[in-house]
Amino acid sequence: MTPVTVIGLGPMGTALAEAFVKAGHPTTVWNRTAAKAAPLVAMGAVHAKRIEDAVAASPLVIACLTRYDDTRQALEPAAAALKGRALITLNSGSPAGAREMADWAAGHGARFLDGAIKNVPSAVGAPDTLLYYSGDKTVFDDHLATLKILGGDTVHLGAEPDLAALYEMAVGGTLLPALVGFFQGAAAVQARGLEADTLVRFTVKWLEMISSILPAFAREIDSGDYTKPMSSVNVFLAGVAYDEELGKEANLDVTWQAPLHDLLKRAVEAGHGDHSIAALTEVLKRPERAA
Amino acid sequence: MTPVTVIGLGPMGTALAEAFVKAGHPTTVWNRTAAKAAPLVAMGAVHAKRIEDAVAASPLVIACLTRYDDTRQALEPAAAALKGRALITLNSGSPAGAREMADWAAGHGARFLDGAIKNVPSAVGAPDTLLYYSGDKTVFDDHLATLKILGGDTVHLGAEPDLAALYEMAVGGTLLPALVGFFQGAAAVQARGLEADTLVRFTVKWLEMISSILPAFAREIDSGDYTKPMSSVNVFLAGVAYDEELGKEANLDVTWQAPLHDLLKRAVEAGHGDHSIAALTEVLKRPERAA
Repeated sequence: MTPVTVIGLGPMGTALAEAFVKAGHPTTVWNRTAAKAAPLVAMGAVHAKRIEDAVAASPLVIACLTRYDDTRQALEPAAAALKGRALITLNSGSPAGAREMADWAAGHGARFLDGAIKNVPSAVGAPDTLLYYSGDKTVFDDHLATLKILGGDTVHLGAEPDLAALYEMAVGGTLLPALVGFFQGAAAVQARGLEADTLVRFTVKWLEMISSILPAFAREIDSGDYTKPMSSVNVFLAGVAYDEELGKEANLDVTWQAPLHDLLKRAVEAGHGDHSIAALTEVLKRPERAA
Repeated sequence: MTPVTVIGLGPMGTALAEAFVKAGHPTTVWNRTAAKAAPLVAMGAVHAKRIEDAVAASPLVIACLTRYDDTRQALEPAAAALKGRALITLNSGSPAGAREMADWAAGHGARFLDGAIKNVPSAVGAPDTLLYYSGDKTVFDDHLATLKILGGDTVHLGAEPDLAALYEMAVGGTLLPALVGFFQGAAAVQARGLEADTLVRFTVKWLEMISSILPAFAREIDSGDYTKPMSSVNVFLAGVAYDEELGKEANLDVTWQAPLHDLLKRAVEAGHGDHSIAALTEVLKRPERAA
């Protein structure tokens, strides 16, 4: 069992450390606010007061802080101890941030992997929980069994250290818009005196339906052929009026949808009216790139 | 086996009629463009040239046209024949449209049920396909076995005929924003020379994660207590910078997100910064309603 160090004990870092402790790995933890380590110590983890000792305790160091900047700042006093160790970052950030982090880690002789866990802390350790990584493949291969403790669906995207951040952002772009769509629906059923809870099971099925059509949309986007639509831009444009009616009936501010409707109109102007809704992908590309 | 009439043979109407034929129901079909009936006739359906004959052929008439207006216009010549029959509409539309449709049906002595099938035509007939209805409960009860041929997950929302349209719109509000989020991600991975298809399996898992957190959000919305957040408005606001970085790096127009970010800022101004992201629901309510 490889000794593991977990840096950063927010809800996600705590869940990661807990999974390692439960799996029987010698686990060292460090957090800026030391008190957060106490429950993990009670479970069998070792608390390192100094970050230098935390890093020195294990060949595998996993940092789960908020941003790359925070990670570098926290690790700076322990930089010398990183030499020859495997360092994995699991935080949010941009591809550029991941590249900077990778350069920093390389400069200190660490073998670096960046990862993303796009899930809630309670999902850590489940057989179908997805974590994806990019960067040094030897770190991934050497520690695969250990990494799988965090989630059964563990993937290496490639050697470029910023791929995990790229995919994290590409995937994450659906979250806020989908949630606002749900909140709007919740406010609409509430306006009728019904509970938001009654909407959940229908929305869950709806999200499953959306998932089922994504492969076809991806094929259209990859081929650039939008001419055999399941659902056309014009069909979506015809639905815009219903959204406005709902807004009036439920007394909701639906203006956040205006730029989405504008995208539909721009797609029609670009000749995509009878094409697949996936043609919006082309409208999102800035002209200088599309040209 | 109850004889069934299906009015409107677009992709969805055709799928409905096909399911009834395959299940052994005497099935009569009508469409403005008669040629669309041919494949169904080859399978065993009866094609009625006149809509009066189509309606007269069955005690259960299911109309699957584009809008309520189209449905009334198509049925007008057959209005006298509707008396005593069960009429079910399965089209898109607003709650107000459903109420008008119900009044029209009642005026002609039909027993009326409005329904929604929030799925693709190929999902018709599957055991977990969801259809929900509202309106005359006796129609639902009398024909439940027949309706279940269209999807195993068949629900009656209530006697008010506009509830299915309300839920359809409340649920549907996630579609366009979620898709645009996916298209943006697809354009971002394409900008890196990768295929959109590589994003699908990650987005599918992500949508499953979103589904898993909806019950907790609904509880917050129903209780009005946003003070114990899984994920706060401020956390989302901190992520805005990453979206802008992604836009620059992938040369994408991400301005469609601006009003979503504005909602976050308005939530902070309203004192919801450290509250759950579900507090956006309150920001979506117009002041005159919230007050």
